[in-house]
Amino acid sequence: MLKVPLHQVAGHQASGGQLGPLIDDSGRFYKPLQSDERGSSEVAFYTSFSSNTRIPDHICRFFPVFYGTQLLEASDGSGLHPHLVLQDLVSGRLNPSIMDIKIGSRTWPPESSDDYMQKCLKKDRESTSLPLGFRVSGLQIYGSKESGFWKPEKKLIKNFSAEDVKLVLRKFVSSNASTDSDSELDCSFASVIYGGSTGILAQLLELKAWFEDQTIFHFYSCSVLLVYEKELVLKGRSSGAEVKLIDFAHVVEGRDVIDHNFLGGLCSLIKFVSEILTTPGEYTMKDSEKNLFSSDNGINE
Amino acid sequence: MLKVPLHQVAGHQASGGQLGPLIDDSGRFYKPLQSDERGSSEVAFYTSFSSNTRIPDHICRFFPVFYGTQLLEASDGSGLHPHLVLQDLVSGRLNPSIMDIKIGSRTWPPESSDDYMQKCLKKDRESTSLPLGFRVSGLQIYGSKESGFWKPEKKLIKNFSAEDVKLVLRKFVSSNASTDSDSELDCSFASVIYGGSTGILAQLLELKAWFEDQTIFHFYSCSVLLVYEKELVLKGRSSGAEVKLIDFAHVVEGRDVIDHNFLGGLCSLIKFVSEILTTPGEYTMKDSEKNLFSSDNGINE
Repeated sequence: MLKVPLHQVAGHQASGGQLGPLIDDSGRFYKPLQSDERGSSEVAFYTSFSSNTRIPDHICRFFPVFYGTQLLEASDGSGLHPHLVLQDLVSGRLNPSIMDIKIGSRTWPPESSDDYMQKCLKKDRESTSLPLGFRVSGLQIYGSKESGFWKPEKKLIKNFSAEDVKLVLRKFVSSNASTDSDSELDCSFASVIYGGSTGILAQLLELKAWFEDQTIFHFYSCSVLLVYEKELVLKGRSSGAEVKLIDFAHVVEGRDVIDHNFLGGLCSLIKFVSEILTTPGEYTMKDSEKNLFSSDNGINE
Repeated sequence: MLKVPLHQVAGHQASGGQLGPLIDDSGRFYKPLQSDERGSSEVAFYTSFSSNTRIPDHICRFFPVFYGTQLLEASDGSGLHPHLVLQDLVSGRLNPSIMDIKIGSRTWPPESSDDYMQKCLKKDRESTSLPLGFRVSGLQIYGSKESGFWKPEKKLIKNFSAEDVKLVLRKFVSSNASTDSDSELDCSFASVIYGGSTGILAQLLELKAWFEDQTIFHFYSCSVLLVYEKELVLKGRSSGAEVKLIDFAHVVEGRDVIDHNFLGGLCSLIKFVSEILTTPGEYTMKDSEKNLFSSDNGINE
């Protein structure tokens, strides 16, 4: 029995009769192929990636497992539609906190048409992609049974400034994330989620080392997904912090050149995360930012 | 007595009555301030950089020493004109081989006007900046007393493809660089010039480590200069291989973000240089590339 994923934070969503991804109970994620070349590009990437013997195992684990494609009833009722069959990255998680971060100051490949380039460039300039080398494209932070998730609306996320991004990266690992905006974010989970030998920073650095060397693929408009479970952290168990890469509709061949655009953005994100680990308590919200983080803007599910 | 520099490979040149930089015999380089905001930007950068106590000494040595500004007779005979007074980076060198490499896939700062952005973007797309993250903007390779320098024309360099760039980086460290184009480049100086604990790769890696951390400046449209002396290499002495940074008319404040654009391009250049060290003999010129490297295109001085 296929159903709409509960924990999707970005991209097209199947709820409300739209075309979007579905999941099953066995841990698979069915992503409808986009009808233009993006669909075939993403299939081509997964096919090429999963058969490429030059990708080391410790890198493969950053990517969803690919089970091929399948014709399925589309979520919008339009009949049979081809879907990518992928690993459901949050299968088995109860209340995952998730951040979707689109990496790269440029989201368009060099060979793009003028129209496509200008369209993407506009988004890159209007978001933090250009100044920071990445932008947040989706976000949910689990608070508690009572408060549920803080999941800001797409429109709000789209307008995140550099300061907002800095703040949500702190909020993501704060125990008081769901309380009123005028409190200081405590970043009390930072050392467990971002830090440590298996934490998010260590995983990002592992990815970085690969990107300094690999010249097989260039990942335009691809996202890094950060995931962890607050309840595990509170129980003093491993946080289940994971870094995953998703969205490969704009991956192109590397042609013996490293993906300097992705690498630059990744290094920028790494620097932001490192700063939180070295100065977890330093940051206090400015008055001008308080509105953004008031509960009015969140959806409590 | 001021004179026109012999070993300038890129930028405006003072020869032929144009406005361009001058040098003296004491090792100083006089660069005319550009009359628009680029001039004041570059002065502002040098002033800020040379007074910034957070720049470690081992990084300062990559930058020309700054001696202030001075009113001088301009090289175009137009009268007194303000000049930056800088260290002449090739002072004391007899026959330096030099490569000027503009770093970054994007040569314009995020805050650029639409016009300036589109102008730079066009150049970035038409050159290797976009695909490689850097482009060669000037070049001279010393051959011998007889053959002099191979110094391709600006127009030729402007049209360098990714393959051409790969090739000149090999040619730069080949003993047979000035011979006919159909020979295989031997890269016989690679281990001395690019390799070793004081070679160009080691210096680029030192710069990279700083760029992974520094959030003070963003260096748009800035160049890395690679310099060495072939005659020293042939005598079995230290090659005098040096990496320098030049051209700071488009440096902007970092605002707590790393310069992911420069860093990405630098990592790409590092990968190219590393590949030459690991496979010095692997590359043979393709027929299609032979024309580019025939002596017709070079100026023998």
